[in-house]
Amino acid sequence: MPDARIYHRLPSPFVCKRGGALVDAVLAYETWGSLDPKCCNAVLILTGLSPSAHAASSLNDGDAGWWEYLIGPGKAIDTNRFFVVCVNSLGSCKGSTGAASINPGSGHPYRLDFPDIALEDIANSAHDLIAALGIAQLAAIVGPSMGGMSLLAWLHAFPGAARGILNISAASRSLPFALALRSLQREAIVSDPDWQNGSYAADHWPVAGMRLARKIGVITYRSAQEWRYRFAREPLRGTQTPAHRFAGGFQIESYLEGHAQRFSAAFDPNCYLYLSRAMDWFDLDDYGGTKLALKDVRAERALVIGVKTDLLFPPDQQLEIAEGLRHAGVATEYAELDSIQGHDAFLVDSERFAPRVARFFAAL
Amino acid sequence: MPDARIYHRLPSPFVCKRGGALVDAVLAYETWGSLDPKCCNAVLILTGLSPSAHAASSLNDGDAGWWEYLIGPGKAIDTNRFFVVCVNSLGSCKGSTGAASINPGSGHPYRLDFPDIALEDIANSAHDLIAALGIAQLAAIVGPSMGGMSLLAWLHAFPGAARGILNISAASRSLPFALALRSLQREAIVSDPDWQNGSYAADHWPVAGMRLARKIGVITYRSAQEWRYRFAREPLRGTQTPAHRFAGGFQIESYLEGHAQRFSAAFDPNCYLYLSRAMDWFDLDDYGGTKLALKDVRAERALVIGVKTDLLFPPDQQLEIAEGLRHAGVATEYAELDSIQGHDAFLVDSERFAPRVARFFAAL
Repeated sequence: MPDARIYHRLPSPFVCKRGGALVDAVLAYETWGSLDPKCCNAVLILTGLSPSAHAASSLNDGDAGWWEYLIGPGKAIDTNRFFVVCVNSLGSCKGSTGAASINPGSGHPYRLDFPDIALEDIANSAHDLIAALGIAQLAAIVGPSMGGMSLLAWLHAFPGAARGILNISAASRSLPFALALRSLQREAIVSDPDWQNGSYAADHWPVAGMRLARKIGVITYRSAQEWRYRFAREPLRGTQTPAHRFAGGFQIESYLEGHAQRFSAAFDPNCYLYLSRAMDWFDLDDYGGTKLALKDVRAERALVIGVKTDLLFPPDQQLEIAEGLRHAGVATEYAELDSIQGHDAFLVDSERFAPRVARFFAAL
Repeated sequence: MPDARIYHRLPSPFVCKRGGALVDAVLAYETWGSLDPKCCNAVLILTGLSPSAHAASSLNDGDAGWWEYLIGPGKAIDTNRFFVVCVNSLGSCKGSTGAASINPGSGHPYRLDFPDIALEDIANSAHDLIAALGIAQLAAIVGPSMGGMSLLAWLHAFPGAARGILNISAASRSLPFALALRSLQREAIVSDPDWQNGSYAADHWPVAGMRLARKIGVITYRSAQEWRYRFAREPLRGTQTPAHRFAGGFQIESYLEGHAQRFSAAFDPNCYLYLSRAMDWFDLDDYGGTKLALKDVRAERALVIGVKTDLLFPPDQQLEIAEGLRHAGVATEYAELDSIQGHDAFLVDSERFAPRVARFFAAL
């Protein structure tokens, strides 16, 4: 398997916001492009809940990354110009220390002994990596979805650490509709008897629960409009098998099934539980609200992007972020895109996203 | 337990649309008001997926019904004037024959031997009841949600059988967003090991699966706007216990939990599976599309109500129904209400619904 990951050892112990500490914890990250001699051209990407650090292909790993259309030589985030760093979030399972990692204190995986991770911990750990790379100030920090929330935590903790800010489809806090959905995804996992209170065997994950959780996710990450256009009521084709005993026999079910199968085999259930709840808990109101939390931010410019069809983080939540940044004196552009792909549009709607992002980076 | 149900024996065998037949099947129904001597003042109510026939309180059952605000003496559907009949859908578990009923052929519950019920069967069986009551033509037929879809099936089969039509938050067919959600609800149930391929014990239902299914339902029956206003990020209060091991600790989770507990103890899981899939399958395109399917309808007037915040059956689907009725020459009013309660608004937004419905019935 090609692998472009590099590992950064965090200070030990790494104290977590909500209590507990991690010993010998690491962050996995990947980079593209070259850091200039003055260390002024670095771009940090914080990810959504599930992506790895593999945002784009590289010489060491030629597989397409999850943001392949956006990152590379000559692309919107131009790696001929910028040194791009993407971090697998602390608490995840794609190389960084998380609930599936070995607890050095016991020699066994942490599982539910992992501390209650917070997005602030993700931000702090990423900042430690950036400092260790000798980067005093980023050219830009970028965060979509959960990554955008971690970005807000970063800005509060390190208000002068980036010249440019690109926040996409995120929020200062989750509203009850998003809280309900994520709580339900977690309930699907912990209700699966195979979850075994977090102690499932490596070859016997709570797959049924993970499948349900992923399908709930995909339903809410996309939009009704997109599916109406893509799938309508198209039935399963001849060789396709129904997803379950009481399936309706529609193509949309097969689409969800594909997503569920890929995900349930690839993401550690406990890590999912921890990160999902961390998103629920995050709230800039803990710091007096968006404006107060961001008041010291000293970036030169910001672009905040929201998507009209986003059910999870509706556009007025993006606007709140933009207003918070403006309040701090940052020249902030707010773009509300017409993508029909909902919350996930940033992953797939290259047509609308790439030019906006390219323009922002060209002006940096 | 007070009980106002009356039972109607269907013709035996009762042949089902998708194959199979029911022997000695019954419908449970309740009535309010008196049938006038000419049998001209009858109103039939077809229900959503889960309600019983107990739409309102009466002398025989003083408990509030699921549409208590709308039905009664002097109310919008005035039982001083109308003889109101509400039917528990064929295939349900509230008195009518369904998968939980005893199969006379075996002496055991049908379970998965129950035929693949369709909304057309619900419509046909309800029509049989109405005919048996001596009612040649209804004053009005009323259907919210699944009941509105069953109403469309009725209108296609019996185009002259009602003078007035009230269709609420329904659709000529489910679109992929609704299909995906319902398929997922069913997957949650059949993934629960306690489902036992439909052969769960009477005292050991697949409760975890039913809870998940109901929560998915409630999330999509209401709206993000409503919850933002009602719950925001309010935490659980002191004595409240989290819904599961990885709950976030928010009031919205407790609200969902209450819904889930009530429902998972009260609705037979197999019946739920059958009715949910029947909704997926229903499609007026089977009859050439909405206009063609409804072309022979000879009602005097119709009111079609949609709700702006309905995620499952968005307003343009209500408009399609209204246009189908207009195309048939029915004087049709289309009302798009500003309720923030989403698909379920008809159950709770008495302020917006009652006056509209009252005006419609007053003019009948």
